[in-house]
Amino acid sequence: MPLDPGRYAVGFDIGGTNMRAGLVSENGNIVRQLSAPSPRTTDELETGIADLVAELRRDHHIDAVGLAVAGFLDPECEIVRFAPHLPWRDAPVRARLEALLDLPVRLEHDANSAAWGEYRFGSAQGANNWVLLAIGTGIGAALIVDGEIYRGAYGTAPEFGHLRVVPDGRPCPCGKAGCLERYCSGTALVDTAIELASSGAFDNSVLLDTLRRDPRELEGKMITHAARDRDPLGVAVMEDFSTWLGECLSIVADVLDPDLIVIGGGVSKDADIYLETAVAHFANRIVGAGYRPLARVGTAQLGADAGMIGVADLARLAVANH
Amino acid sequence: MPLDPGRYAVGFDIGGTNMRAGLVSENGNIVRQLSAPSPRTTDELETGIADLVAELRRDHHIDAVGLAVAGFLDPECEIVRFAPHLPWRDAPVRARLEALLDLPVRLEHDANSAAWGEYRFGSAQGANNWVLLAIGTGIGAALIVDGEIYRGAYGTAPEFGHLRVVPDGRPCPCGKAGCLERYCSGTALVDTAIELASSGAFDNSVLLDTLRRDPRELEGKMITHAARDRDPLGVAVMEDFSTWLGECLSIVADVLDPDLIVIGGGVSKDADIYLETAVAHFANRIVGAGYRPLARVGTAQLGADAGMIGVADLARLAVANH
Repeated sequence: MPLDPGRYAVGFDIGGTNMRAGLVSENGNIVRQLSAPSPRTTDELETGIADLVAELRRDHHIDAVGLAVAGFLDPECEIVRFAPHLPWRDAPVRARLEALLDLPVRLEHDANSAAWGEYRFGSAQGANNWVLLAIGTGIGAALIVDGEIYRGAYGTAPEFGHLRVVPDGRPCPCGKAGCLERYCSGTALVDTAIELASSGAFDNSVLLDTLRRDPRELEGKMITHAARDRDPLGVAVMEDFSTWLGECLSIVADVLDPDLIVIGGGVSKDADIYLETAVAHFANRIVGAGYRPLARVGTAQLGADAGMIGVADLARLAVANH
Repeated sequence: MPLDPGRYAVGFDIGGTNMRAGLVSENGNIVRQLSAPSPRTTDELETGIADLVAELRRDHHIDAVGLAVAGFLDPECEIVRFAPHLPWRDAPVRARLEALLDLPVRLEHDANSAAWGEYRFGSAQGANNWVLLAIGTGIGAALIVDGEIYRGAYGTAPEFGHLRVVPDGRPCPCGKAGCLERYCSGTALVDTAIELASSGAFDNSVLLDTLRRDPRELEGKMITHAARDRDPLGVAVMEDFSTWLGECLSIVADVLDPDLIVIGGGVSKDADIYLETAVAHFANRIVGAGYRPLARVGTAQLGADAGMIGVADLARLAVANH
């Protein structure tokens, strides 16, 4: 049954600091966007969501609401089990919001939401078996096979960020050490810069002033800018990142064997300075190199809006297929 | 349509040294078994397979033939792309054997075959989303979701043995270093014993005599025997193995999130001396420990026959569903 083209779904991207709501058309366009600080209690968070929906509903017909959540959901996407930056704990969020909004609600993991957005309207259209790697603060991942989100038996798959790649390596906020995202993420760029600078081999980098003043002031984007200016420390950090990204791609390819891997998240906008090196390392690292096709590697198209667009589409499809 | 109970399928397990052929009933029982050395050339290998089928066909009606192959197949299971211990290279084995045998032939990767055997007749009956880890010389793995073998876009998934878990770690015959199967396999037991013995901390182990005479004489089963006798070096090696197996289980759970992981392969028969420790380490290592259910961990039931039984069943089902 074709959907009414004048109807919309709302997609929420709920972060630890702010939440954004997008009014999304059937073609995946965000026609209006609102944002608000993310409240700290469950009640205020849910009321805050309802307020944004009410605001968007004033001038538009809304069919469904989707929420992209950075946390663990149950495999049926009814319950938020645990979300490190949000107050929900084992909370039946879908049912509570449906009662509050009087609208169909769809929950989805944030990486799955972003992957669905890229699959329907972005860089992964038509891909049969593909993985999104959303690399920013950490590594989020999603696998879509034959148009279905793979979520595993308990809704947590696939998780790559906390695979241990260096025994006794860099400490991770997760409580362990040597996790992949401590070497292959936006935040890892800063750690690598500090490590390399302390070797003393880089005495003429523009990054050293900041590091000497206060290492906490150093940000990933300062490093990528420096690398673009051929700053030796910036270039060395990005080379280290490229190598780890190649390692990460080889892990994904060995375990999941997709035909396409899309790099999203904050680091994807600088792909031009690292992706070629990363893919060369990837090609060299996979098992049976030379005897199997290499997955294509691309970059995301929808940027930070992919989750909102994807989860709005999932919410709309859930209504249409009901 | 019910299958004729008096009919059989043949399952082949083709190893680098020997090939075995089992005449398998619909209930997964091997009613007769033959074996022969694995020939070194493609022609001799295919003729050797045909000879064993002819021998089994003399007294029994055979519906189909399955081959469990340790190597890369194309995703349609028509072609053996590369098998390190066999002469086939990009060989259209299925079509050639069908012409030679005048029987329907089904190729399958050996770990997938063994997983199918355990799923249909062994320890994974009824599991919805589960992983076989076949740990022996290396690590083979298979994922079965909703009764379907997951094979990835190019037929190579899932591969865990050559994930790099120790940068600049133990050298691996694959050409890289620090691969998981260099720490978590039957062959790794020997490497660990040699490393621990060289520390000088074990001066009263029964394994030291062998190590001093010729380290190449040391075998995994000598180490597990020693551990059963509370030999200090044997116990230490198995503790190290347990920790790595826990790590391996956590990698599988993070990436694939199954409800069941079955340990098969040569090391599985000694599970009583390491599995409890490994599962405790696993429970501690996964992301979000405490906020998500822990996959059950079991051991394989069909032993070294799982591949023959599984691939015979797959061959029979392919005919029944045709």
